[in-house]
Amino acid sequence: MKSYRIALSYDGTDFRGWQRQPDGRTVQGVVEAAIHKITQKRVTVHGAGRTDAGVHALAQVAGFRGAIRMADADLFRALNAVLPEDVRILSLERAAPDFHARKSARSKVYRYRIVHAPQISPFDRRYALHHPWPLNLRAMREAARLVARTGDFTGFSSNRDRTPIRTVRRSELRKTGGEIVYTIEAEGFLRYMVRAIVGTLIEVGRGKCPPERVEEIFARRDRSLAGPTAPARGLCLVRVDY
Amino acid sequence: MKSYRIALSYDGTDFRGWQRQPDGRTVQGVVEAAIHKITQKRVTVHGAGRTDAGVHALAQVAGFRGAIRMADADLFRALNAVLPEDVRILSLERAAPDFHARKSARSKVYRYRIVHAPQISPFDRRYALHHPWPLNLRAMREAARLVARTGDFTGFSSNRDRTPIRTVRRSELRKTGGEIVYTIEAEGFLRYMVRAIVGTLIEVGRGKCPPERVEEIFARRDRSLAGPTAPARGLCLVRVDY
Repeated sequence: MKSYRIALSYDGTDFRGWQRQPDGRTVQGVVEAAIHKITQKRVTVHGAGRTDAGVHALAQVAGFRGAIRMADADLFRALNAVLPEDVRILSLERAAPDFHARKSARSKVYRYRIVHAPQISPFDRRYALHHPWPLNLRAMREAARLVARTGDFTGFSSNRDRTPIRTVRRSELRKTGGEIVYTIEAEGFLRYMVRAIVGTLIEVGRGKCPPERVEEIFARRDRSLAGPTAPARGLCLVRVDY
Repeated sequence: MKSYRIALSYDGTDFRGWQRQPDGRTVQGVVEAAIHKITQKRVTVHGAGRTDAGVHALAQVAGFRGAIRMADADLFRALNAVLPEDVRILSLERAAPDFHARKSARSKVYRYRIVHAPQISPFDRRYALHHPWPLNLRAMREAARLVARTGDFTGFSSNRDRTPIRTVRRSELRKTGGEIVYTIEAEGFLRYMVRAIVGTLIEVGRGKCPPERVEEIFARRDRSLAGPTAPARGLCLVRVDY
């Protein structure tokens, strides 16, 4: 049995997310199918982050184990030859036997892109949210700052998780030219958490609620106080650290 | 009758090119349909460049005439509201009655992107050609230089044009990081001309023929001496000058 670690990049637009589904094209599904096609082995590929439908990855990390005889370099090349063009394996290496892409991860970085200009380029439409209306960036930055904490993130998740405590190490908003980029880093995230946070930041930016709303959401753990879940297209898993 | 000039950007991937077709989704077709939907007027939209299927535009220019009563700013907004997301109108202004997007153009700039690295990012796959094999850039640059001239470009076109003389003002190749960008500027181009030139540059880069092959193609006007037509995905109409 060999243990592998791969980094991969994908355009999430045409995937129903990371996690394998009986129907539906998923990233885990196509990667497992590619490994099977090349090695005749059925393996389970564990991703560091289970990205939702439409969410992209610049460098997702995943692991799998299998009695594969092929040399690593050959497996790497064969995978990229077999995989569809919207997923690329960036690297393949041998991992420790106890390596688990999600459980071993120290932190994950997600980025959300908002095009804040009258027009969005057709080349950005799959990768960013378009918000042509006024936004109070100062209020949004303040709200973003309040997200960086160890706390109960139930109010920012659509699921009730039995362990809703998470530590967000970094939560910041930057505007460069006509683009707003929100970056968030944590060891783990609840379901739809980043998109609920972004939806809330936009509500704050529109003046629908004050930045202190974030405190209230933490205190009351009430999803209805937070903004709507922002569209998947703007979200990208940027990096996983071990 | 009012005369209009618009600049537009589009992701050519899902279009069968600029020019209207009875079936097939084309840029001209969707823009004319949008104008009709908004104004109830049937107009013909003339593009500066008739881009092929799969070719993109950062800023194509087009013109149309019609007895349209709507204010320009309203027409502009309505067009972007009605058009599909892969076409965006960048600007709309009134033009001189004799304005003709193609005939009045002084020059057009096209760019061709080649990702020259072991891997192409899934985010680039619609917008660049992937060439992971060695290329002699020096030879390619020399060949590119030989393209800049007033001459008979029949050897670089798939059609026999009755007026095959064109003036290429600029033809240059640059490499930045893992990307090769070829830029060509001319008043007009023959059918598939840029892609045949790029295909030839790649053949030169691969050492299949010397840079002087370009001279031979001009002298013999023989398409079979040139390289294959490079894929549409890497090509983009960058700018039109008047």
